[in-house]
Amino acid sequence: MKLTSFIHAGQATYGVVQGDHYRLPPADFLGRYPDLLSVLRADALQELEQAAAASGSTVQATAVRALPVIPNPPKLICVGLNYKTHVAETKRGDSEYPSLFIRFNDTLAAHEDLVLRPAFSERFDWEGELAFVIGKGGRHIPKAQAFEHIAGYACLNDISVRDWQRHTHQFTPGKNFPGTAPFGPYLVTRDEVPDVTKLTLETRVNGNVMQHASIDDLIFNIPVLVEYISRFTPLSPGDVIATGTPGGVGDRREPPLYMKEGDVVEVEITGLGILRNRIGTAA
Amino acid sequence: MKLTSFIHAGQATYGVVQGDHYRLPPADFLGRYPDLLSVLRADALQELEQAAAASGSTVQATAVRALPVIPNPPKLICVGLNYKTHVAETKRGDSEYPSLFIRFNDTLAAHEDLVLRPAFSERFDWEGELAFVIGKGGRHIPKAQAFEHIAGYACLNDISVRDWQRHTHQFTPGKNFPGTAPFGPYLVTRDEVPDVTKLTLETRVNGNVMQHASIDDLIFNIPVLVEYISRFTPLSPGDVIATGTPGGVGDRREPPLYMKEGDVVEVEITGLGILRNRIGTAA
Repeated sequence: MKLTSFIHAGQATYGVVQGDHYRLPPADFLGRYPDLLSVLRADALQELEQAAAASGSTVQATAVRALPVIPNPPKLICVGLNYKTHVAETKRGDSEYPSLFIRFNDTLAAHEDLVLRPAFSERFDWEGELAFVIGKGGRHIPKAQAFEHIAGYACLNDISVRDWQRHTHQFTPGKNFPGTAPFGPYLVTRDEVPDVTKLTLETRVNGNVMQHASIDDLIFNIPVLVEYISRFTPLSPGDVIATGTPGGVGDRREPPLYMKEGDVVEVEITGLGILRNRIGTAA
Repeated sequence: MKLTSFIHAGQATYGVVQGDHYRLPPADFLGRYPDLLSVLRADALQELEQAAAASGSTVQATAVRALPVIPNPPKLICVGLNYKTHVAETKRGDSEYPSLFIRFNDTLAAHEDLVLRPAFSERFDWEGELAFVIGKGGRHIPKAQAFEHIAGYACLNDISVRDWQRHTHQFTPGKNFPGTAPFGPYLVTRDEVPDVTKLTLETRVNGNVMQHASIDDLIFNIPVLVEYISRFTPLSPGDVIATGTPGGVGDRREPPLYMKEGDVVEVEITGLGILRNRIGTAA
């Protein structure tokens, strides 16, 4: 199942993607589960599938405004330096552990949202990533059970303000400008992705390929991430973990290349759709 | 005004501290503002003061169980390396910018809560800190207006799992074990703190003084922090910023000293009360 969140008739809602339209759950279902987070919390994905199939109500994808596919994750955790090609371009050494930072939810953006570069930084850079969403919560989840805790997958663009990311050793500021993490367009449930390592990630700016990698190239793969993260923090339904970006970021090119007003950035992952955003400049 | 959050008759609530008892707001006030966050969002501190003064309902401090003074801050931002004595003991260089990391809300704990050291780390360390709470939100807040945006002050103990903090250059894991950030016992409103730089911070373990510093020794003072942080992220009522810890942490002593089961850690700041916690071990 391919799920998406959007604004329809002035109301935040969600639906099941079928080609170029979205099937809306019936009103009583929406009454019980007003957003995808509440569906995940109630472990109600199957119920959603049945309810949406029985519902006659659909809307054209072009007629609605997208929301971040999970607009309100309880935790939004990002992995840095998780592809050898990216570690090499940053000239850092290998690490025994994944490097993790946190984004606030107000950094999320939707597919087709205008993403605003702060006027005081030129170093506005893409980071195409695979994100996974927790379905079943837990603490101390062993690697072997990790996939059972995953509801599905989505594209995420971990757009970074590079100078602010490197003001100190902590990445926090450069990763927390509002609306700099487009997330979507779909949440594709785990049953539709039999082997996530077979997926390919590509980031394009104005149609030019900037990043191209196999998910199989992750240094710390998804089971390792779930085990490590859940040792220090409890995971809950709706938590989002962005797995890191491969080599090819703009800041490490020679000469460096950054996104500017009018540029169009796309993150595409096999079967997860294309996450597309235009760049603007904040006042 | 000295405010506190607690559980009374099975219900999360809050009140105004008067000596050894808490004055409870009347039911209609609690109906409109169920927690201190909603009071701050409505800019209703004055209204709370009047409502509580008119209310005849009080409860003994010893009869309730404390909650983190703001249990649900929209953002919980911590400053690292913000006293020269602490920068020196960590053998790091000076920085032009404050070093910032984020804690999830499930890391908060209350005054008198048992704080659990994970069984798999011995390096469980105190960090007494002054925290301030945002009253009026904003973005790009200039230093000169910073104090107008502050609702009040509280003690916070930024307890750290040192090995997990240093797995990589990002502090996230070691700062995000659940229930490791006691916060309280009171929120003291800004009008009662005419000059915050005059306050003294002390951390004690089993009665022995481990940290003792003047808030005037902050490298990046409160106005600088408010200006810097609000340049990259919008601040809202209830956001909490912990300003960093002075020299004297256990991990940098020779020999190192850590907290173990049964230890009692206290953070005291002039006029803000004593934040006291006993240490236990997680299963």
